Amino acid sequence: MLIAPPEVRLPTRDAVERAVRELDRRLGPSKVDVSEARREAHARDDSAAAGRLPDAVVLAEGRDDVRVALEVCEKHAVPVTPRAAGTGRTGGAVPVAGGVVLATQGMASIVDIDRHDLVAVVQPGVVTGALHAAVEAEGLFYPPDPNSLSSCMIGGNVAENAGGPRAFKYGVTRDYVLGLEACLMGGRVLRTGRRTIKGVTGYDVTSLLVGSEGTLGVFTEIALRLVHAPTEIATVLALYSDVAAAAAAVTRVIARGLVPRCLELMDAWSLEAIRRQGVSIDLRASAMLLVEVDARSAGGGGSASLDATLEALGETLSEGGHAIDVVAAQDEAQRARLWEARRMLSMATRKLAKYKLSEDVVVPRSRLVALLDEAARVCEREGVRHLTYGHAGDGNMHVNFLWDDDGERPAVDRAIEGLMRATVELGGTLSGEHGIGVSKAAYLPLEQGPELIGLQQDLKRVFDPSGLLNPGKIFPTGHRAC
Amino acid sequence: MLIAPPEVRLPTRDAVERAVRELDRRLGPSKVDVSEARREAHARDDSAAAGRLPDAVVLAEGRDDVRVALEVCEKHAVPVTPRAAGTGRTGGAVPVAGGVVLATQGMASIVDIDRHDLVAVVQPGVVTGALHAAVEAEGLFYPPDPNSLSSCMIGGNVAENAGGPRAFKYGVTRDYVLGLEACLMGGRVLRTGRRTIKGVTGYDVTSLLVGSEGTLGVFTEIALRLVHAPTEIATVLALYSDVAAAAAAVTRVIARGLVPRCLELMDAWSLEAIRRQGVSIDLRASAMLLVEVDARSAGGGGSASLDATLEALGETLSEGGHAIDVVAAQDEAQRARLWEARRMLSMATRKLAKYKLSEDVVVPRSRLVALLDEAARVCEREGVRHLTYGHAGDGNMHVNFLWDDDGERPAVDRAIEGLMRATVELGGTLSGEHGIGVSKAAYLPLEQGPELIGLQQDLKRVFDPSGLLNPGKIFPTGHRAC
Repeated sequence: MLIAPPEVRLPTRDAVERAVRELDRRLGPSKVDVSEARREAHARDDSAAAGRLPDAVVLAEGRDDVRVALEVCEKHAVPVTPRAAGTGRTGGAVPVAGGVVLATQGMASIVDIDRHDLVAVVQPGVVTGALHAAVEAEGLFYPPDPNSLSSCMIGGNVAENAGGPRAFKYGVTRDYVLGLEACLMGGRVLRTGRRTIKGVTGYDVTSLLVGSEGTLGVFTEIALRLVHAPTEIATVLALYSDVAAAAAAVTRVIARGLVPRCLELMDAWSLEAIRRQGVSIDLRASAMLLVEVDARSAGGGGSASLDATLEALGETLSEGGHAIDVVAAQDEAQRARLWEARRMLSMATRKLAKYKLSEDVVVPRSRLVALLDEAARVCEREGVRHLTYGHAGDGNMHVNFLWDDDGERPAVDRAIEGLMRATVELGGTLSGEHGIGVSKAAYLPLEQGPELIGLQQDLKRVFDPSGLLNPGKIFPTGHRAC
Repeated sequence: MLIAPPEVRLPTRDAVERAVRELDRRLGPSKVDVSEARREAHARDDSAAAGRLPDAVVLAEGRDDVRVALEVCEKHAVPVTPRAAGTGRTGGAVPVAGGVVLATQGMASIVDIDRHDLVAVVQPGVVTGALHAAVEAEGLFYPPDPNSLSSCMIGGNVAENAGGPRAFKYGVTRDYVLGLEACLMGGRVLRTGRRTIKGVTGYDVTSLLVGSEGTLGVFTEIALRLVHAPTEIATVLALYSDVAAAAAAVTRVIARGLVPRCLELMDAWSLEAIRRQGVSIDLRASAMLLVEVDARSAGGGGSASLDATLEALGETLSEGGHAIDVVAAQDEAQRARLWEARRMLSMATRKLAKYKLSEDVVVPRSRLVALLDEAARVCEREGVRHLTYGHAGDGNMHVNFLWDDDGERPAVDRAIEGLMRATVELGGTLSGEHGIGVSKAAYLPLEQGPELIGLQQDLKRVFDPSGLLNPGKIFPTGHRAC
């Protein structure tokens, strides 16, 4: 049950053949794969968006490969879909117009980790978790931690402006991108930004490229800001009898000015999915908060500050008497198990039904309870099962719609549209970290006016006048029922 | 001794008269001021950039006034220079093409301060210090603190992406702008961004507008992220016998992972300017660090964490035995006096010579000593006096060139160009918080390649195809000697 590709212009057979021949000649045949297996493997990402089978996959090994691919494809009017790990959740890396998939997973060097300036320079194919390990080995820290961090890649993280649980304290990918090298359609090479912490020279083209979902340029080198690693971390689990009580606790934590690094909420069905993974959770609980605090001790020793924070946190989570239990993780193993369960949630929910669609809406934090109510209301109205978990501290919830029968799809679609409308009415936004891609393009006009959408399409034309780079993404086009 | 206006297209006499007549009719004559006094008062900002006398000043009182002014001026091909407080340091608000100055200081409402969602919504004419006072009365905090905070306005802060001493810990204006309402040349109204903390819907047009120096649109409403106010602040003063020892201490503070909210450096001449204001500073000292730490206590009481930080800070500043003295401010009065002296530095340095030009370069933090060396080297080579102070923690230094004789100007210009070249060679950027405006436009190609400059000019055309909004800024055009 896929989201069909939008109606986009497809390349001609002739154009593709000419482009592949020239790519073969200029890059060498080993970098231009037209095998069925490779093309199939690059036709989808981790969303419900269906692609068209690409005509070829270019396996770039460096900037010049990317540059040549974009030059050749522009010349022959062949669409290009950039791709890093393909773990995206809204179809950003899905080749909806066929053509060439430009794969950057072969560009996986950590070029530099500068301990003094707190800067890392990486290629787009570096796995996010590998970057974490490398900088942490130096006592440093790269905070963004999307759920798929063991497989997703920095290039995709930058393209989608990825977040993760730690965004509550530390912010999202854009907050860490200092500068970019990007190749534009046609083969121009653009260098933006800087390696300094501050800088106001010219327009912030770097921020414009971050989160542009592969529609403006293909990143070939990325300069990231690092911070010093926290020296202490503690994890607290709070169980509640219902999700409203858990959401109210989130509001109290924020109102008190506490800034845990993570503040994650899971509803009853999410807990059920976790229990089915063998994690034992009090059966009375129908909602859980997973809260993590960290600090960097000034002197190297002493955890006085974290102790005080933990005490205040415990008080705040328990206040009002609605908590079933508030406990600190006993040891590193228990902490790891809790996070493992949280990270597995996305996969685990797939086992609860034949089909699943996960949305990624954000509301102002004070409207969290209202959002949960609205999600329940539209699902009840349409007779659709759902479960909700996510980054409650940011007001960013993943609402998952579940169904088993193909005939339920129209009701699911109505429920999703109802959720999107409710989100916008609550002052929220359609996507917190997954992007718009193919999956949400039709909903963009719910949130943004025609002036802003038109202006963004004009900006797109500055980077890609021919419209060949990642067509069919972000902006609404015709979609067909699948 | 001014920087002459660049060669830009001037409006015709006829066009101006037609525009003023229509503005009069549509806005009412009280909002369209053509008096000599008003035009003179709006011909300059707080930089050395000379403007041309504007033909009229529109005193906008709301979004519709801004919209109408931009519509009428586009229709009659009259250039528009937006202006908030006019405290800018690079000529951003200077009307280099004459025409209309669009003044927004009359739009000074704080529309909303939302304690729950930690958001403030303000008009562009709100004085930054007034916003500080208003949010601090609610226990909240808006960190950006440009030096001119008692007179500068949020609209200008957003246009220039203003910083300030607290940027070391808290970041700059862009890090706090969630969403914007902006009017474009011609009168289109654009609403960008959101009121939620996270959001990845479409391109980050908000970040593109922040720091665009009034060349893309005129802000009419600004949504700002707030944080909870720190509950404890302490200020430490460290004196050194030379600036290299002070810069080395900055490097040690950063290497230890300490994050003071401010980490300001002043060289020998800066100290002299402070002493002349009546602040007593040990005469053996030829460099000073002004360091401020803050924290928010979790429980409401207890300063254990700040005490530990202060101890670590004291150790680090003293290490190596090069400090003459390291002392904490004894009380609030002493702290206020120190900051008063720091904030007065820009004005005080003007008394040291007949002429002054202040640059605002940034280098990677590890290159701070190298930057100070280079500044000394180019000034010695050209026989130009200089003094340096600024946000050492960010590698962002204000290098001030001082001279008394008109004939020295060519040597000053060579010294400035030498500093700019050295900055770029050290991996730095031309401006940390003042912008490019008129003053630095000629140097832009030192840092940015033709691809990036051309692309930014194309982006400008998307917002302002006729090129009438704040012409002559950021991008190099012909400059004449004055």
